[in-house]
Amino acid sequence: MKINGTAYRTIWLSDDGWSVEIIDQTKLPHELVTARLATMEDAAVAIRTMQVRGAPLIGATAAYGVCLALREDATDEAMDAAIAHLAEQRPTAVNLRWALEEMRKAIRNLPREERVAAAYRQAARLCDEDVETCRMIGIQGLRLIEEIAAKKEPGEPVNVLTHCNAGWIACVDWGTATSPIYQAHDKGIAMHVWVDETRPRNQGASLTAYELGAHGVPHTIVVDNAGGHLMQHGKVDVVIVGTDRVAASGDVANKIGTYLKALAAKDNDIPFYVALPHSTIDWRIDDGFKIPIEERSSDEVLKISGRLPNGSVVTVEIAAPGSGAGNPAFDVTPARLVTGLITERGICPASAEGLINLYPDRV
Amino acid sequence: MKINGTAYRTIWLSDDGWSVEIIDQTKLPHELVTARLATMEDAAVAIRTMQVRGAPLIGATAAYGVCLALREDATDEAMDAAIAHLAEQRPTAVNLRWALEEMRKAIRNLPREERVAAAYRQAARLCDEDVETCRMIGIQGLRLIEEIAAKKEPGEPVNVLTHCNAGWIACVDWGTATSPIYQAHDKGIAMHVWVDETRPRNQGASLTAYELGAHGVPHTIVVDNAGGHLMQHGKVDVVIVGTDRVAASGDVANKIGTYLKALAAKDNDIPFYVALPHSTIDWRIDDGFKIPIEERSSDEVLKISGRLPNGSVVTVEIAAPGSGAGNPAFDVTPARLVTGLITERGICPASAEGLINLYPDRV
Repeated sequence: MKINGTAYRTIWLSDDGWSVEIIDQTKLPHELVTARLATMEDAAVAIRTMQVRGAPLIGATAAYGVCLALREDATDEAMDAAIAHLAEQRPTAVNLRWALEEMRKAIRNLPREERVAAAYRQAARLCDEDVETCRMIGIQGLRLIEEIAAKKEPGEPVNVLTHCNAGWIACVDWGTATSPIYQAHDKGIAMHVWVDETRPRNQGASLTAYELGAHGVPHTIVVDNAGGHLMQHGKVDVVIVGTDRVAASGDVANKIGTYLKALAAKDNDIPFYVALPHSTIDWRIDDGFKIPIEERSSDEVLKISGRLPNGSVVTVEIAAPGSGAGNPAFDVTPARLVTGLITERGICPASAEGLINLYPDRV
Repeated sequence: MKINGTAYRTIWLSDDGWSVEIIDQTKLPHELVTARLATMEDAAVAIRTMQVRGAPLIGATAAYGVCLALREDATDEAMDAAIAHLAEQRPTAVNLRWALEEMRKAIRNLPREERVAAAYRQAARLCDEDVETCRMIGIQGLRLIEEIAAKKEPGEPVNVLTHCNAGWIACVDWGTATSPIYQAHDKGIAMHVWVDETRPRNQGASLTAYELGAHGVPHTIVVDNAGGHLMQHGKVDVVIVGTDRVAASGDVANKIGTYLKALAAKDNDIPFYVALPHSTIDWRIDDGFKIPIEERSSDEVLKISGRLPNGSVVTVEIAAPGSGAGNPAFDVTPARLVTGLITERGICPASAEGLINLYPDRV
């Protein structure tokens, strides 16, 4: 998508034809900085330190990490070591392991002298496929937005509420939850997005607001507490969120707080959609409450980073000294609260039947 | 309640017998600082700048502000001017106007030479009555906690979730939502409180956590997003919150985000109680959605204050530059989601009938 008029992806090949450039997301929203990855370890560090984040983008970065490793040593041993090392940087990200296995399949039966070129081709293919998948999610979701827009006065915006960042900077381009929004905006439909701040890491206020603003989509940041009130007062037409994992039953694991918004949407008869690529469906789990929920550091709750008036970025403690914090990172929204799942193949009910009808091949 | 073993109120008469001391809440939780109010204008500034906050405490501070004004000029004109000036410092706080009218009633028919002494007696009475009302709310709510504790293994804590600060530092002592918690804790019942951070002003993380910690009550801060997940996993036995205004229908206006917790409590069959003194009931409003909702400054969402490692307190910008924010300060929880109202007279259903049965005199 665009940043101040210039089209970007989150990851791309440098002009030298072999090293990789990324948007360093640890610097957002305070600065737009790109970083260059020249070794496999650079890629590993970028994943671990969250210079790149979002399941699809982590997978793409790991794929290029394999390319960078093979440039130095194209043996089976080096390939296996690189894949193992990259996989362990974020142990819960499903897409990371999936992308690494796709790389292994593309390389392992090739002679060593062909491996580097094949790896770069495969990494580029994974990135392009992610872009196409996200674009198709947008095309599918666009229909919903067009239906809402058709019932409004001309120019009256469609109000979408979203939680966390399931945007293009979590993917390679377009995003998942944001893709229908960008498609609608680019088509000239008046859009307005309520951006949940998304404590504790504030991905909404810092990343979603940043990317919507950079692409020119009107939006308003609200604290996570505000969404229910906005829905009670008719200020939300539809909720669209992303997901970290969808159970085969249609239950949705996503950023902590998603469940509360789903309850409020239900209570106010507002449609609640979840946007996802097929790779997010976990066919092995038939109950969302079996999805393990990561408990993260209390520091994410007790401290926060921000800009001082002089522009420098500092971290401050915000809570009562001596008080501890709990920090579950995700929650599970039961399928009964989800109006539908927006995938690259179409929109289906959040149910075992809905999913299997859309994915009889269980890709 | 106690701060590190010493009993405090939020407001008290100085040793000189006429000036007033308060805990300066703008310095919490980073520092415990008391401030001295020696003039009516000192009291007005303390209310306006939120050195004191919480409806009951604002009323108490305004009452002493009248005393300080009368010391300098005990004419009717001076009294009227002081009351008018103090009332406009926080135009929406119901308790502020109520306390000022109580002062006027106690003073106006007295000769000038008796007014100062009468004013101090009345201000002290309002403070003592607030303490007694809050204590009785605690006694009433204690029954609920005892019932929950009776079903637990010995020593297993009763888990209460609360939102915002309806604690003793919002009142003169005890608090409203916290009063049953303190009563239970002081009686030796094992308690644990989930403290909602309460964005945007973070009264939970900074004030509720502070006062619970200072009194020795075990607690854990969580982001506002986490409560639903905790309830899904059986980690909350009861929700108790305060309120800014209760409609005669039983609908409850309280800090933004309260409605989301009420929805989650309902979805998980967890009792949801609201604690309040009689002065919070608005008999003139029969529908909570008629209660005006204050929209506050976007800076409360976009900026935050905290401690640097060197101990100094700074304000930083935390959101994407250029993005705006909405900031509704309260929401309305429909009576259908409220298990009961805990008042100084007893616990009643959140309904017109429940309220009128408890308050046939409509005090």
